[in-house]
Amino acid sequence: MDRIQVGIIGAGRIAYVHAHNIVRNIPFADVKGVSDPYLTEKAKAWISELGITNIYDNYQALLQDDEIQAIIICSPTDTHAQLIRESVQAGKDVFCEKPMDLNSSEIKKTLEVVKASGKKVQVGFNRRFDHNFAALREAVVTKKIGDLHLVRITSRDPSPPPVSYVKSSGGLFKDMTIHDFDMVRFLTGSEVDEIFAYGSVLVDKAIGEAGDIDTAVVSMKMANGSIAYIENSRKAVYGYDQRAEVFGSAGAMESRNDVPNTAIFSGKDGVTGEKPLYFFLERYNDAFTAEMKAFLEAVRDDVDVPVGAVDGLNSVLIAEAALKSLQTGKSVKVAY
Amino acid sequence: MDRIQVGIIGAGRIAYVHAHNIVRNIPFADVKGVSDPYLTEKAKAWISELGITNIYDNYQALLQDDEIQAIIICSPTDTHAQLIRESVQAGKDVFCEKPMDLNSSEIKKTLEVVKASGKKVQVGFNRRFDHNFAALREAVVTKKIGDLHLVRITSRDPSPPPVSYVKSSGGLFKDMTIHDFDMVRFLTGSEVDEIFAYGSVLVDKAIGEAGDIDTAVVSMKMANGSIAYIENSRKAVYGYDQRAEVFGSAGAMESRNDVPNTAIFSGKDGVTGEKPLYFFLERYNDAFTAEMKAFLEAVRDDVDVPVGAVDGLNSVLIAEAALKSLQTGKSVKVAY
Amino acid sequence: MDRIQVGIIGAGRIAYVHAHNIVRNIPFADVKGVSDPYLTEKAKAWISELGITNIYDNYQALLQDDEIQAIIICSPTDTHAQLIRESVQAGKDVFCEKPMDLNSSEIKKTLEVVKASGKKVQVGFNRRFDHNFAALREAVVTKKIGDLHLVRITSRDPSPPPVSYVKSSGGLFKDMTIHDFDMVRFLTGSEVDEIFAYGSVLVDKAIGEAGDIDTAVVSMKMANGSIAYIENSRKAVYGYDQRAEVFGSAGAMESRNDVPNTAIFSGKDGVTGEKPLYFFLERYNDAFTAEMKAFLEAVRDDVDVPVGAVDGLNSVLIAEAALKSLQTGKSVKVAY
Amino acid sequence: MDRIQVGIIGAGRIAYVHAHNIVRNIPFADVKGVSDPYLTEKAKAWISELGITNIYDNYQALLQDDEIQAIIICSPTDTHAQLIRESVQAGKDVFCEKPMDLNSSEIKKTLEVVKASGKKVQVGFNRRFDHNFAALREAVVTKKIGDLHLVRITSRDPSPPPVSYVKSSGGLFKDMTIHDFDMVRFLTGSEVDEIFAYGSVLVDKAIGEAGDIDTAVVSMKMANGSIAYIENSRKAVYGYDQRAEVFGSAGAMESRNDVPNTAIFSGKDGVTGEKPLYFFLERYNDAFTAEMKAFLEAVRDDVDVPVGAVDGLNSVLIAEAALKSLQTGKSVKVAY
Repeated sequence: MDRIQVGIIGAGRIAYVHAHNIVRNIPFADVKGVSDPYLTEKAKAWISELGITNIYDNYQALLQDDEIQAIIICSPTDTHAQLIRESVQAGKDVFCEKPMDLNSSEIKKTLEVVKASGKKVQVGFNRRFDHNFAALREAVVTKKIGDLHLVRITSRDPSPPPVSYVKSSGGLFKDMTIHDFDMVRFLTGSEVDEIFAYGSVLVDKAIGEAGDIDTAVVSMKMANGSIAYIENSRKAVYGYDQRAEVFGSAGAMESRNDVPNTAIFSGKDGVTGEKPLYFFLERYNDAFTAEMKAFLEAVRDDVDVPVGAVDGLNSVLIAEAALKSLQTGKSVKVAY
Repeated sequence: MDRIQVGIIGAGRIAYVHAHNIVRNIPFADVKGVSDPYLTEKAKAWISELGITNIYDNYQALLQDDEIQAIIICSPTDTHAQLIRESVQAGKDVFCEKPMDLNSSEIKKTLEVVKASGKKVQVGFNRRFDHNFAALREAVVTKKIGDLHLVRITSRDPSPPPVSYVKSSGGLFKDMTIHDFDMVRFLTGSEVDEIFAYGSVLVDKAIGEAGDIDTAVVSMKMANGSIAYIENSRKAVYGYDQRAEVFGSAGAMESRNDVPNTAIFSGKDGVTGEKPLYFFLERYNDAFTAEMKAFLEAVRDDVDVPVGAVDGLNSVLIAEAALKSLQTGKSVKVAY
Repeated sequence: MDRIQVGIIGAGRIAYVHAHNIVRNIPFADVKGVSDPYLTEKAKAWISELGITNIYDNYQALLQDDEIQAIIICSPTDTHAQLIRESVQAGKDVFCEKPMDLNSSEIKKTLEVVKASGKKVQVGFNRRFDHNFAALREAVVTKKIGDLHLVRITSRDPSPPPVSYVKSSGGLFKDMTIHDFDMVRFLTGSEVDEIFAYGSVLVDKAIGEAGDIDTAVVSMKMANGSIAYIENSRKAVYGYDQRAEVFGSAGAMESRNDVPNTAIFSGKDGVTGEKPLYFFLERYNDAFTAEMKAFLEAVRDDVDVPVGAVDGLNSVLIAEAALKSLQTGKSVKVAY
Repeated sequence: MDRIQVGIIGAGRIAYVHAHNIVRNIPFADVKGVSDPYLTEKAKAWISELGITNIYDNYQALLQDDEIQAIIICSPTDTHAQLIRESVQAGKDVFCEKPMDLNSSEIKKTLEVVKASGKKVQVGFNRRFDHNFAALREAVVTKKIGDLHLVRITSRDPSPPPVSYVKSSGGLFKDMTIHDFDMVRFLTGSEVDEIFAYGSVLVDKAIGEAGDIDTAVVSMKMANGSIAYIENSRKAVYGYDQRAEVFGSAGAMESRNDVPNTAIFSGKDGVTGEKPLYFFLERYNDAFTAEMKAFLEAVRDDVDVPVGAVDGLNSVLIAEAALKSLQTGKSVKVAY
């Protein structure tokens, strides 16, 4: 079996994560090249450290390289859809960071192209590969919790992105909650039927001035009859809070946060353990490796990817319905 | 100071709890008499065990007893409002089990009478006196968690009531969620402004056939800007699940369930601790004592009761708005 | 069935605990009288509050009262043995606080008298009635943990007693560890065969100057083959630390500390829960009630007491062997 | 800076761990060659997978290779001392698995040679690099727990080694407890002054017939005045149990076991979390990487290794004293 040659479009933080994981932890694949029109010194450093030799300012060099079998898209969101289309048309399998696009109609158009190409597209919903959420999903699938009745997601970021980013982010639901929408779909194995959202600006007024919210509670009726709900905040001072709970006729399973160590201090002010891991790359470190491995194994073995383009589409459709609910005060049917 | 003489209307399970707590744990009060038109053998037994000598089939005997200063109403819900009115008009202070009535207009009428009488009325929201919820409330009041942003309540019963009871219960929101509505008001120190509810029949079809739901997720925008949400199920096989979390600009505080002991078994199937206390009287045992003590201290010292008639009214108004939301699929303003 | 009449010798803190528990929580018994040669104002207050009418400065008044069936000895340790002897000879059943005496030969002499009298003597090892330790004992008895291999006891006081008390306390092993020795016997259901002790003065030099130690690690080979070990400190700044663990061929069961509530705060400095309950009367509140109830039920039903005089003797014999080991640096056989 | 070239003697399981960690996770070093007289198919596979090209049946080939700067000794224990001596005499820095030898006099002889050579020798006490134990050590160093009074180590293996191995293992203290002896030295930053041990055969009679024990409780007086104690069992059915606690004048810090995920299931039989990681290579996965990185950084930067040959010696001296105590029933001074 030949090794899989990978090309990465974009050389930012998440590009480094994927490149590092392939070079260090995935023995059957190589990063053959990286493209970025504006290469930072930092990017040059990690590209060199990982022994990647082909650097381009234009992604087309990657698409034209016949040895490259898989493309990883880590460029800005507004380029995702077009790059997916060009990549599959160039005969490449694609891994694309979420969201596929901020606009569902653009994604739908992309799906048509993907379908016609017969190539694989995996979307970067890394949390599906996390050990804790995987345990919850397994408890649903195996019916350890019986018939599923309720799903809870508590998802809080350690601190909000810059307001400049917020402005072009597509809003809380498409930028942050989208991970949780996908998690609800993953945990339930079902689609969101109706959705309702309350949202507020409680963390930072500037976010509100930018037309977005920073705090939200979203509830959903699922096609399988269960009810799911998500709580979001852009800022938890104690770190990245990523918990979930599934509840059913035979019990409940909840996951708590990962901590850097198990040490517990008993002192005059209480009994204190570590805070949750703060940074998403640290928290989901293993999950990022696992998702990339799963993608490249699917490429290698020519089987279905575990998270497909339709997952990328549906999470955006749900986000759009959530926004409509927020604006109208009504429960909104998701229009698939 | 003279000892306070108490009369109890009703001799069911909750009447026993209050009578026991007064006789055993509240040194400055006595249960002078109990009235119940249909006295069971079980009731006779505990009345005798507690050394209560005056038993009546008619509550008027209690109201006419000048030595009796405080009335505890433990009769069926549909008698509460009238008994409160008659009691305060007879010059008694009143402790009444929740809900005050299933109909908010009946409660409003009662409040007028109470106001005119100048007597005290405390409503039986026992959970306000629980050690865990009290710790959360304190974290809000002292701003330990900073400015309040979000409140979560997870409230699941160990098993549903009989369908016969469900039919006359007023529905999930007035019968079960009402405690959680009051808890939201207690934890936030604020009123519910708007409310939205999803509900389903997932536990028992017979509950649906009786016109009720057994599973719900309710979200609320509070007058102080925070967002609260409640999750309910009528049946958690592992026991009475009563957790909450408050989240704000300086952190989060969550309360977990009480367990019968701290022993943890590590065996070949995992690391296992005790289930939550199963029965509400066991779980809130100390809270029931504390609420009664607080009521009788208010009577003794002639100060305000900690949970007044307006709390009884507002929780029903919220429940009515929740039901309207469930029926319309819209966010509903609570009409105070 | 007649109610059991109880007389209490001594009116200090622990006398109040027992009197309160009998009056408030044990429906089939009454405290008929209390004797104390030096009655404090505080004692007079609680005696009055509990409605106890007979107060004597001489315990003989209690022994001569034919209605009194059971005597509770709460006087200073050096009077315990004689009072037990006189009480059983006066035909009374006896509950005596630990230790029965600081000297094992005095206890042996007392046991002869008790045996001859045919009366019951229960020793105040309250921890046997604690919910956590009871769960561990049950895991041993039911073989949930399989064959017992190891027992660990972590036992730390919140703060040392006054040095004046230390001087007449009999030393750490007879004053503090004695509870843990009894717990080892309770959990294993076996006797200590050999014992070894290391001890140090780490908390307070004055304790060392008084000829005692404040920190110790004691290990024991049990007659049933298992190994037990105890760790003691006179001062844990975070409160009363009372944990244990039993380990066997099918797993381990450990008990943790009781806390005042389950609330957990996540803030910028960590994830913090409550400290253990600080005061032994608070920590073992329910256990004190349970031990007294068990004693009075044994009196009422004329069955064996759950913790007998031989338990009082053996714990002192173990303490004496521990002291000998500390002084000689050798493993010492307990001389039963 | 040139990359460090490493030679590995032995190609068993632990050799693979170190080789993998160097190749995958330590960017500044390479495994240049591996030697093993009896190379298994499994070994050939991982050597090939890791891209190591030089394979020898004789370790001298590695010692004679001038490019190789560091030797990792993963051969059987009885070859360790001689290989260390030959390696340092060949001018190599050495990382050697524990124990350095079963006999302290052989180790002392080796230390002389190491000293004369001026080369570095690190001993494989991997647990010093574990996140949990590191947190405890930090709490001691920073005096977060105040002055250190007590150290507890609970160390249980998931299952005993084969009896054939037990026979040549040097016994429980030199084979298993040796890690815990080193941990006591690490956590306290002090030396064991006196030691006492109880041991039993409770897990498997065949271990006793082989002249060893499988269960032990060992206590130690440390040179700094604190008391430490270790509990060992060869078999915990629930997995690899590796906990510790340090206690001092300002509080206690305990570490618990690592688990594969944080999911907790509440069902009708209790509230159950995952068992501890079962296998030592899994449990200490990150620690193995960290210790190798620390060694190779010391080589690269020419600074002291974090765990030296004297640590290897002293842990064996403590084990020898423990054995003497077990045999004599006396506290034994460690003869440094």
